[in-house]
Amino acid sequence: MVDVLEILKKYSESIDREINKSLISIDPKSLRKASEHLIKAGGKKLRPSLVVLTCEAVGGKPENALKTAAAMELIHTFSLIHDDIMDKDELRRGEPSVHVLWGEPMAILAGDTIFSKAFDAILETKIDDVSSSRVLEALKTVVDSCIKICEGQACDMGFEEKFDVKEKEYLNMIYKKTAALIAAATRSGAILGGGSPEQVEALSEYGRLIGMAFQIQDDYLDVISDEEEIGKPAGSDIVEGKMTLMVVHTIEKASPEDKEKLISILKSGSEDQVEEAIALFKKYDSIEYTRNIALNNVKQAKELLNILDDSESKEALLHIADFVLQRNF
Amino acid sequence: MVDVLEILKKYSESIDREINKSLISIDPKSLRKASEHLIKAGGKKLRPSLVVLTCEAVGGKPENALKTAAAMELIHTFSLIHDDIMDKDELRRGEPSVHVLWGEPMAILAGDTIFSKAFDAILETKIDDVSSSRVLEALKTVVDSCIKICEGQACDMGFEEKFDVKEKEYLNMIYKKTAALIAAATRSGAILGGGSPEQVEALSEYGRLIGMAFQIQDDYLDVISDEEEIGKPAGSDIVEGKMTLMVVHTIEKASPEDKEKLISILKSGSEDQVEEAIALFKKYDSIEYTRNIALNNVKQAKELLNILDDSESKEALLHIADFVLQRNF
Repeated sequence: MVDVLEILKKYSESIDREINKSLISIDPKSLRKASEHLIKAGGKKLRPSLVVLTCEAVGGKPENALKTAAAMELIHTFSLIHDDIMDKDELRRGEPSVHVLWGEPMAILAGDTIFSKAFDAILETKIDDVSSSRVLEALKTVVDSCIKICEGQACDMGFEEKFDVKEKEYLNMIYKKTAALIAAATRSGAILGGGSPEQVEALSEYGRLIGMAFQIQDDYLDVISDEEEIGKPAGSDIVEGKMTLMVVHTIEKASPEDKEKLISILKSGSEDQVEEAIALFKKYDSIEYTRNIALNNVKQAKELLNILDDSESKEALLHIADFVLQRNF
Repeated sequence: MVDVLEILKKYSESIDREINKSLISIDPKSLRKASEHLIKAGGKKLRPSLVVLTCEAVGGKPENALKTAAAMELIHTFSLIHDDIMDKDELRRGEPSVHVLWGEPMAILAGDTIFSKAFDAILETKIDDVSSSRVLEALKTVVDSCIKICEGQACDMGFEEKFDVKEKEYLNMIYKKTAALIAAATRSGAILGGGSPEQVEALSEYGRLIGMAFQIQDDYLDVISDEEEIGKPAGSDIVEGKMTLMVVHTIEKASPEDKEKLISILKSGSEDQVEEAIALFKKYDSIEYTRNIALNNVKQAKELLNILDDSESKEALLHIADFVLQRNF
């Protein structure tokens, strides 16, 4: 199996350089430090790499995509910082969250600053190489995904303690919260690379599909993997009472008694009933169902790449699609 | 005296329509309601009107500036919502703040959504009427001011309990926090209207100067006006221990004893010593000094408008500059 982490490393140095260039001028220093913290804590740079790879895959120069690539990582980081405040998550990438270290006001502000810097970066794209109208189109794509991220987070917050979420609603939430930004990465890359309208659409859809698969696979791995594999206790979504595709599917299919049982397990927050919840998922084929959706999404995503000429970046995009189904992503 | 509120009303209906168009599609409804709240609570629409007026003043069509005008109001609103969370302000425009009504997570998200919608609005500018490169230039101006707003708020937070702030630092803070957005409004209007580089610079500087004057005058009015005039108890900045240009000036000029006395008054939070603080401001000519800076800024701002041909919108910009020195703005 090709090591996708190696693929992602190919451009990560140039991407990091752009990100650093963008944040270095933030003044006062306290705001700069808070803004840099999470970025410096690492991350695999999936989203920015997708911008560069899709730009290249349609025949564009990778350097024309670097500013927008940096912007995608900045937007991802901004949303993590604000989400951690909202969800009261105190750890991120193995480090204390920004609001834990600098307090909520500074964390809100760091997110806002990084968000602004993302647009600033895109606007730095050299107009001599990429036409103004293409930059505007890429920007539109990115801005649209930002609105969706906010809407997705609001939907997710609305799902708390709500157990009648329909599958369609759930899929719409993960589309907005996770897949839309990945689709914006692949779409903006294709736009900046000068892809044909068909290529832009195909790569946009490729991004959406692997983004969906990524989140759905995350749901799936929680119940089928052991702790070592996924880096957190298996079944922890169940203990946390989290909405997942398996929960949604089981609740839609289950008898009134089973439905009630599952809801009471999810509400209990107890680790003792994880096996019982998994048994219910199995009874209604929800684990298989979830797995199949993820697999199908990846399959479709890869088929869409047929629109591209063969190239190293096309190969990379194929591997990334497969990698979404792996652990530790 | 010309009624500037009447001038601001001229475009406010069209601006409101653009803003509503922008927010109506936010989904889920809870997020939309939280996002609309502060906008619906009113506001004088100074910033958006400046975009339209400067566009017209350089010979542009006002309708080409309407989307960016809406964006400026959205950005102003986003910053108020987040500032209110950070500063724990529970009232805004006579209504409970967004975070008081919807909680902090939803208020953070409403701010983020409105912020995204602002860029979305600018990108909706009709490219047939305004060239892509002009839209990009206007966007750059706006994004740059957003970074400054964040930096200004961080500086302001850093000033708390710090009494050795230099005049230059203080002026830099109010530039970033308040004047930069007003300068972005006048600059982007001039760009979208197709103004010459000299006109763009002059109108940008006009915006900066009236923005500075607006904030400095606010400091001044706090000590020279009565409660009825300014809508809050006179001297309330002193009671709150707020950094103002008068405080900065007095602390820079005062004898060690007077400096210590003023700092202890500001730290006390007591209403009994307001008169004593004002006496110290007077002793070091800080009130006169502050007033003169505001007056000079407005004078310079108006002179810069000489670059424009005579028109109704030029007249309006002249009146707005004067109005900045009035109460209740």
